[in-house]
Amino acid sequence: MRAAVMRNSSLVVDTVPDPEPGPGEAIVKTLACGICGSDLHALKFAHKMVDIARETAMPFNMDPSKDVVMGHEFCVEVLDYGPGTDGNVKPGRRAVSMPLVFRPTGILGVGYSNEIPGGYGELMVLNASLLLEVPNGLATPYAAMTEPMAVGLHAVEKARLAPGDAAMVFGCGPVGLAVIAALKLRGVDPIVAGDYSPMRRELAGKMGAHVVVDPKEKRIVDAYRESADLRPAAMFECVGVPGLIQEVLRQAPLGAKIVVAGVCMEDDAIRPMLAINKELSLQFVLGYTPMEFADTLGALADGRIDVTPLVTGKVGVEGVAQAFRDLANPETHAKILVEPWRA
Amino acid sequence: MRAAVMRNSSLVVDTVPDPEPGPGEAIVKTLACGICGSDLHALKFAHKMVDIARETAMPFNMDPSKDVVMGHEFCVEVLDYGPGTDGNVKPGRRAVSMPLVFRPTGILGVGYSNEIPGGYGELMVLNASLLLEVPNGLATPYAAMTEPMAVGLHAVEKARLAPGDAAMVFGCGPVGLAVIAALKLRGVDPIVAGDYSPMRRELAGKMGAHVVVDPKEKRIVDAYRESADLRPAAMFECVGVPGLIQEVLRQAPLGAKIVVAGVCMEDDAIRPMLAINKELSLQFVLGYTPMEFADTLGALADGRIDVTPLVTGKVGVEGVAQAFRDLANPETHAKILVEPWRA
Repeated sequence: MRAAVMRNSSLVVDTVPDPEPGPGEAIVKTLACGICGSDLHALKFAHKMVDIARETAMPFNMDPSKDVVMGHEFCVEVLDYGPGTDGNVKPGRRAVSMPLVFRPTGILGVGYSNEIPGGYGELMVLNASLLLEVPNGLATPYAAMTEPMAVGLHAVEKARLAPGDAAMVFGCGPVGLAVIAALKLRGVDPIVAGDYSPMRRELAGKMGAHVVVDPKEKRIVDAYRESADLRPAAMFECVGVPGLIQEVLRQAPLGAKIVVAGVCMEDDAIRPMLAINKELSLQFVLGYTPMEFADTLGALADGRIDVTPLVTGKVGVEGVAQAFRDLANPETHAKILVEPWRA
Repeated sequence: MRAAVMRNSSLVVDTVPDPEPGPGEAIVKTLACGICGSDLHALKFAHKMVDIARETAMPFNMDPSKDVVMGHEFCVEVLDYGPGTDGNVKPGRRAVSMPLVFRPTGILGVGYSNEIPGGYGELMVLNASLLLEVPNGLATPYAAMTEPMAVGLHAVEKARLAPGDAAMVFGCGPVGLAVIAALKLRGVDPIVAGDYSPMRRELAGKMGAHVVVDPKEKRIVDAYRESADLRPAAMFECVGVPGLIQEVLRQAPLGAKIVVAGVCMEDDAIRPMLAINKELSLQFVLGYTPMEFADTLGALADGRIDVTPLVTGKVGVEGVAQAFRDLANPETHAKILVEPWRA
């Protein structure tokens, strides 16, 4: 099959072996697969990601010196099942799945494995038991947004909001926008967000932020004070570059709950006294639970989360490398989907 | 009156003006006052403490270039009250108080103020309304331990322990020992603690730790695994030097709650990915609530917290400078009390 392959820290298009479904697995056709910020990180920091995953005992065993077909935000069509396997989703129907494959030899991360391909290739194998059928009405590109939007839902769940809490969102890239959508779903008001990019600020408003600022012109906490006054604050760090956690600690009101949803791959510096004097808490988050994943699909299907503004581009496998470069500029794209069968 | 005075970053004994009680205030005789790690910090980092306090809007307005009489862990005898003031504690009786004085001009931190003296001097002024009478049976040196033990109670409260949680304590200086005592009071089992100092390890056992290790020989988390198996972990960082938060992140089991009770005055480095991959939370804590302070006095008075092993030395004002030097060596002392009237 054709795939965009990560090879020696760059992206090339090549023909790779078709994956073979084992017992308990389905073979599926990739209809659409989003490009995630983590994939951009992986291309740059693959060795570091692997080292830290090993240190934290995560199922993330890829060898970056060998080929990897990335892609973990997908909507697929079920083609067939492996030996002795039957699934809830009939062949020909569309499905989504958490990007994990459980095998007797261990857990594989779809999109971060040398053993199985991710969604930047035409075919994948997935666990039959993890497939969730896409409800009829939901278009394929939006079903493919289940995974990144579930990240936002999980971050908001982990904040353990109390009635009356309001929210600040630092950064309106894909993670920040997913957090805003989940906050809106919860009825949080006001949601105050900030990003340097005009396009991202516009998307933040469309996803449900009540107040959106350019941090060059106004600090997010100052905008928060104007609209939320002294209401207890949950703050979401959705950028993931060194210095951001410290900036959030600096702006945090007394007793604020801070959720770190941005994925900073590098070491970072903080000043603990800022956090001590204000008795702040930091909750670091990753991924989502199976229930949150299914709930997100349901919210997309019945329109409680509207992701239509977020899909800003579609490419075939030949376009993946350029799409990675385009995503470095926040003014051109939010989410680019790979459609591997596209001519 | 005679006092040990912080002057130009050193400690000298001098005669300073007697404090005068204003309306709503009591004049008290300092019977005993503990030397706190924060005082050791203050002697070294006073300007930094003041800068950060200002940034975080704390009531901590001292000018380190002017005289400060430190000391905020005290037991006093009430001598008299200010103009038009009556208090619940009769003159001649003993009392403790949170180390704050509320005045129309603002809040003063007792022991960190140029305006009023702390407990390293013979006399203090305190708010009449904050005085808590020492129950008869509790000896003065142990009543003076109310403040540092309340710090431990607060840290444990902020961990929001759930039934079945067990605990790790990193560092068994005064903060770690207070945390151990509060964990014991809550019935947490096992409490696994670590410190490089043999004397501190012995005190940790006396205060209630079930397992105590030398981190040079065994990691705290490894000892935890042996005795607590996979029980959910609350981890208490009670050292407060750069690198310790990162070490706790490294040892933390999946989903651990980390309470940062150590007061690190310097900038620190962390690797956020360690915390993200394990979905850790960090709760920074400071001080205590008035109710926790009163509860601690009650627990000391009825023997639920036994601090008799902790008081390892007593000095007069002339001995304060040497006591600060002695406290740098964890093998000689836990808590040294200043008795300003001592010959």
